[in-house]
Amino acid sequence: MSVRTQMLTMAREAKLAAAALSVLPTAAKNRALREMGAAIRDNAAYLREENARDVAAAREKGLSAAMIDRLTLKEATVAAMAAGCDEVASLEDPVGKISSMWRRPNGLLVGRMRIPLGVIGVIYEARPNVTVDAAALCLKSGNAVILRGGTEAIHSNRAIAGIVAEALDRSSLPAAAIQLVSTTDRQAVYELLQLEEWIDLIIPRGGEELIRAVVANSKIPVIKHYKGVCHIFVDETAELEMALRICMNAKVQRPGVCNAMETLLVHRAIAPRFLPLLAEEYRRAGVTIRGCPVTEQVLPGIAPATEEDWRAEYLDLILAVRVVDDLDAAMEHIRRYGSLHTEAIVTNDYGRSQRFLQEVQSSTVLVNASTRFSDGFELGLGAEIGISTTKLHAYGPMGLEELTTAKFIIYGSGQVRT
Amino acid sequence: MSVRTQMLTMAREAKLAAAALSVLPTAAKNRALREMGAAIRDNAAYLREENARDVAAAREKGLSAAMIDRLTLKEATVAAMAAGCDEVASLEDPVGKISSMWRRPNGLLVGRMRIPLGVIGVIYEARPNVTVDAAALCLKSGNAVILRGGTEAIHSNRAIAGIVAEALDRSSLPAAAIQLVSTTDRQAVYELLQLEEWIDLIIPRGGEELIRAVVANSKIPVIKHYKGVCHIFVDETAELEMALRICMNAKVQRPGVCNAMETLLVHRAIAPRFLPLLAEEYRRAGVTIRGCPVTEQVLPGIAPATEEDWRAEYLDLILAVRVVDDLDAAMEHIRRYGSLHTEAIVTNDYGRSQRFLQEVQSSTVLVNASTRFSDGFELGLGAEIGISTTKLHAYGPMGLEELTTAKFIIYGSGQVRT
Repeated sequence: MSVRTQMLTMAREAKLAAAALSVLPTAAKNRALREMGAAIRDNAAYLREENARDVAAAREKGLSAAMIDRLTLKEATVAAMAAGCDEVASLEDPVGKISSMWRRPNGLLVGRMRIPLGVIGVIYEARPNVTVDAAALCLKSGNAVILRGGTEAIHSNRAIAGIVAEALDRSSLPAAAIQLVSTTDRQAVYELLQLEEWIDLIIPRGGEELIRAVVANSKIPVIKHYKGVCHIFVDETAELEMALRICMNAKVQRPGVCNAMETLLVHRAIAPRFLPLLAEEYRRAGVTIRGCPVTEQVLPGIAPATEEDWRAEYLDLILAVRVVDDLDAAMEHIRRYGSLHTEAIVTNDYGRSQRFLQEVQSSTVLVNASTRFSDGFELGLGAEIGISTTKLHAYGPMGLEELTTAKFIIYGSGQVRT
Repeated sequence: MSVRTQMLTMAREAKLAAAALSVLPTAAKNRALREMGAAIRDNAAYLREENARDVAAAREKGLSAAMIDRLTLKEATVAAMAAGCDEVASLEDPVGKISSMWRRPNGLLVGRMRIPLGVIGVIYEARPNVTVDAAALCLKSGNAVILRGGTEAIHSNRAIAGIVAEALDRSSLPAAAIQLVSTTDRQAVYELLQLEEWIDLIIPRGGEELIRAVVANSKIPVIKHYKGVCHIFVDETAELEMALRICMNAKVQRPGVCNAMETLLVHRAIAPRFLPLLAEEYRRAGVTIRGCPVTEQVLPGIAPATEEDWRAEYLDLILAVRVVDDLDAAMEHIRRYGSLHTEAIVTNDYGRSQRFLQEVQSSTVLVNASTRFSDGFELGLGAEIGISTTKLHAYGPMGLEELTTAKFIIYGSGQVRT
């Protein structure tokens, strides 16, 4: 069977499974999720053996330590994957939810009911835990899913797929509810992206290169974010201690993630007091600063920032710092260089806090809190399937509800149009 | 200037205008809308003169009577266009709306605030009233718009654009808030569809051919519906009189629109009583029936329906009729042949009404009401910019709110992640 035929067959079966999943009671979905969790626990040893084959191959190929770290299923990772299934089972089911209903003058009762999107394709890198995460979230939201993980994780993913298939079978759910692309042929991704008649949404998870390749080739809508160039603006009225704490957290706590701060904007009036204190803390934490000319005056000896630094997503202990004249200059910098991901202001000025919240058009905007809160779980969505920085359908962290859409439902009593 | 450069210039200016519009107070937008209405009224005679040039050219080219009808600006049409601006001014502004806020355990107050999408491209046929409609709805929702109407309406559209530009100027709004593509070069549409960096959404309005051409060429997300193959299922428990009234209305009141019924499904148990009564009413109204073999037995002499009839959007006084065994068979027919637009059930059975509402995945599902209510205004959205039958972003009739997205806003008091 050609790769094209394989993918088409998977997509057709997924669409049939999606029809069945769309009307499945919440209790049945939860049972299947708990079966998945239990099956992962029961097969933890086998899973780690298969994973060890991937890790050995990755070492042989000389992959980076960070990649091998993401690939490796430690005992705790497997336990967390299983616990994740139980947690998703305990989340509220978005399907069938009606947020409001209203009565029309002619008596029609109109509402909007949440239904699944249908079939979702998830394309990601060599992180086997994403296989379980994505499968659980799609199942809970009533969607069929086709998973395509990085080739380096193929043995781990095949093992997970086998375990999940058994759990689906024990729960009397269609096998095609959760399918893994088990070939490592790169053509498979391209073929999947052409199947707009069967697949409703593509979610790529990974680096900018992966996402750009998916977008360039997909005929199916893609929800994505390319990068997170997140800003914090420290206003002149900021409490120094709070600003220090937030700036440290946003840069240092986990520098390699998309909601870490990449550029700091500091109000001119507070820069001489604030920057030396912050620079000292950053020095101890190993953070390198690249600054604008005014920053260089305040912090002699730092490296100068270039135009490229304002656009950079370092994902590392490096920070670009710019001193700005006022709130407007800060927002103009964000508008020009930002990635529509996450921006925060630290201020004690009421009017400026409100202007920042209203006028900054990024997907997550915070007052007096770390950018690191831009995360589905932290914001109370229960889970996160990804982050969107395009405004269509979803904007910002996506939870279960973002894997559904809303149809109109109308209760009538014989009404006709005149 | 090449067409490509022209379009790029328009899109860049639209993006700048969008930034200004996104923070414009509701009152300022409403003033501009009322200025637009007044300007249309003041220039009605000029507008109709320019329109007459288009109509004369259309006659010369031998366009169909229906096309000329849609192109012609009668006195009443112009008055309705002006009144439409006032009506949009009176609608609630979706921008800035926060539907709910919640407190996280760490004290963060999290909500989602509606913001405009940015720049919207509307591509439509030779219907000058759409120029004003779309401009008004985009302006009210804080979006900049680039309008590209059918070539046959070019003089009308240029006249409208001039009038709108004056109204924007008098209201101190950026001229690029509402721009018309004033060249008739077909290449202009293609060039617009490439500008994904500047344009956030494309809404095509018109026939299936126009929409398919837009989708095939667009790098920008498109919200669309190809066609409306709308169904009514008359259950065995339906009240005969209600079923007759709804089926007449859905087919006859305005057969040329997308929410008219195209296929009628009738429960086997009620078909012998119901179909002869309905056929008699349809005969008087000039409706031609094409039926399945069972329908042919009940209504001798009608034409047989072929496989193509089940997929047909007649937009005319023609109806496909199929007798089915039960609700499941009806829903299976809809799943197989439907267009995800609008379906209705006529029933007095509680359980079946609930199953139909929950299980049919079309964008609008009705119980005991005509499919013709699938319309933004009729459902209480205040207005309609289009209908979506793809599940991403919007599903069903789209009002002002569907021209916005929601960002996360977070009020903190110094929180950091641990």
